[in-house]
Amino acid sequence: MADTVNVALDAMGGDNAPDEMIRGAIDAVNKAPDIHVCLVGQEEKINAFLSSCSYNREQISVVNATEVIETGEHPVNAIRKKKDSSIVKALGLVKSGEADAFVSAGNSGAILVGGQTIVGRIKGVERPPFAPLIPTAAGVSLLLDSGANVDARSSHLVQWARMGSIYMENVMGVKNPRVAIVNVGVEEEKGNALVKETFPLLKECPDINFIGSIEAREIPNGGADVIVCDAFVGNVILKLYEGVGSVLIKSVKKGLMSSLKSKIGALLIKDALKSTLKSFDASEYGGAPMLGLKGLVVKTHGNAKAKEVTTSILQCRKFKEQAINDKMNEIFGK
Amino acid sequence: MADTVNVALDAMGGDNAPDEMIRGAIDAVNKAPDIHVCLVGQEEKINAFLSSCSYNREQISVVNATEVIETGEHPVNAIRKKKDSSIVKALGLVKSGEADAFVSAGNSGAILVGGQTIVGRIKGVERPPFAPLIPTAAGVSLLLDSGANVDARSSHLVQWARMGSIYMENVMGVKNPRVAIVNVGVEEEKGNALVKETFPLLKECPDINFIGSIEAREIPNGGADVIVCDAFVGNVILKLYEGVGSVLIKSVKKGLMSSLKSKIGALLIKDALKSTLKSFDASEYGGAPMLGLKGLVVKTHGNAKAKEVTTSILQCRKFKEQAINDKMNEIFGK
Repeated sequence: MADTVNVALDAMGGDNAPDEMIRGAIDAVNKAPDIHVCLVGQEEKINAFLSSCSYNREQISVVNATEVIETGEHPVNAIRKKKDSSIVKALGLVKSGEADAFVSAGNSGAILVGGQTIVGRIKGVERPPFAPLIPTAAGVSLLLDSGANVDARSSHLVQWARMGSIYMENVMGVKNPRVAIVNVGVEEEKGNALVKETFPLLKECPDINFIGSIEAREIPNGGADVIVCDAFVGNVILKLYEGVGSVLIKSVKKGLMSSLKSKIGALLIKDALKSTLKSFDASEYGGAPMLGLKGLVVKTHGNAKAKEVTTSILQCRKFKEQAINDKMNEIFGK
Repeated sequence: MADTVNVALDAMGGDNAPDEMIRGAIDAVNKAPDIHVCLVGQEEKINAFLSSCSYNREQISVVNATEVIETGEHPVNAIRKKKDSSIVKALGLVKSGEADAFVSAGNSGAILVGGQTIVGRIKGVERPPFAPLIPTAAGVSLLLDSGANVDARSSHLVQWARMGSIYMENVMGVKNPRVAIVNVGVEEEKGNALVKETFPLLKECPDINFIGSIEAREIPNGGADVIVCDAFVGNVILKLYEGVGSVLIKSVKKGLMSSLKSKIGALLIKDALKSTLKSFDASEYGGAPMLGLKGLVVKTHGNAKAKEVTTSILQCRKFKEQAINDKMNEIFGK
């Protein structure tokens, strides 16, 4: 049996903290005997909730953190000043090796700053990206960066392509993952300054399977396994994905209520529709790992509920099992 | 009654030329007695098709152009060398005033270059944007630029915000249209270098109703009427819109075929689903006008069929009626 994986969970982060965070932790340990979750946050609140729950007591522990970093706070100041916050304390556990991973639905900027200053970058890594999995018609693709590097340089994108390949191959089991750069056309002369500079570097990169440019239209079709772009474009893609999906589904549902005939039809298709939409639901795929750090840091949606928290916790096992950081260290640490 | 609007149509442009282009022209004149379409392209082919069609002969004329600019051709070279192409000849008709507008499903780059060099920019306009209407839960929004200005400057975005406002107010009838800039968050400190530079300029711009940043998630909800961004981001938004929509609809349809129960349900909801999806179909909203030129140039999808061509032709009426170019001239020509 594999070693126990110890995940430090930010019990205070996100819109639904602490209840949904704690629920997510309980579901995770009830599903996986090799997971230990350390709930980091306001002890009293956490214990009050836990006391009524059923789970193996040995698989969940609590570390007290009195402060909370709010969503709107300035990341650098928050990390510097709130030493007793759940984010700072949990990242400290990853740094010291007491935890293998940190999962949080909290302030993205604070996680990004804290991840780099407390856990630290792998030597040689310039800018750690957030790398969420996005659902496609063919399965999932890894989109990076969707984090803070909104004015990225070509050397960053090349590193992200390499990190993303390692992740997709080892964590998601995609052999020889296809890497593409987001572009406005597939012809080689197309692109903005960043893409034009990055394209030839990706083409020459020996350890990735670069297939060229991908137009945004082809992303939902699963046109590539690893998709690189600056974080401004990545953020637009990620959020528009959610936005178009949810508006379209809402209007389909509303349309179904327009007549008696369609209402009856709606009842008959309910199950089929639900399972289709589930495959396009980002929360099924867990959080976005921040790649290139000396430990694993996973950011889930700010509005994550228990299910997404559970998926994010379980996702950490594969990361540890496959020793992803050792592999990145080998490549970038030279 | 309003004056006749004379539209020069590129009969040879796009994947479905010339048949769908000619069909679109016929449908347009059959719908609107105040429209005249001048079909520009290979005369023999066009006349052969027209001869079997029923329409008012006075509303359609043909101008021969022997050459065709293909989709993959280099725009600048194509415009320079193919003087007898449908694009160059039709733009010449707009330049001379013989036509009020030019509609094409052909090579975007060539239309962009030709629009600027043949028709010419309104004095004071730096970079004419492509400005398509995109469907939202609340109606439509204007997205600009989605054309060639992938490395835009802040002064361009400010001009696009002003042009977009004029268009939405006068052509689409939206009073005091809300203008927003695409961003990765709504807080004022968020953004890449371009957004940070542009934001305060938009805020100070007296003749627009600037409401701040818009996250991509809110675009399909109709969070703003006029949405500005560089053309790289605009292209990603436009194409991802189509991509997510079409993949989601395909999988919903596939899901409906998964059981007998859902198949019966599918029959009952067919009409309701169809009318919902229609409201999210970009071809319902016609082509993207290129704003800031001395005449109207409209680019439709490369795969446009008759319906989109018809909508694009009819759209030109409002543009002329409202004397959009005079209004732009007033603002930028000072």
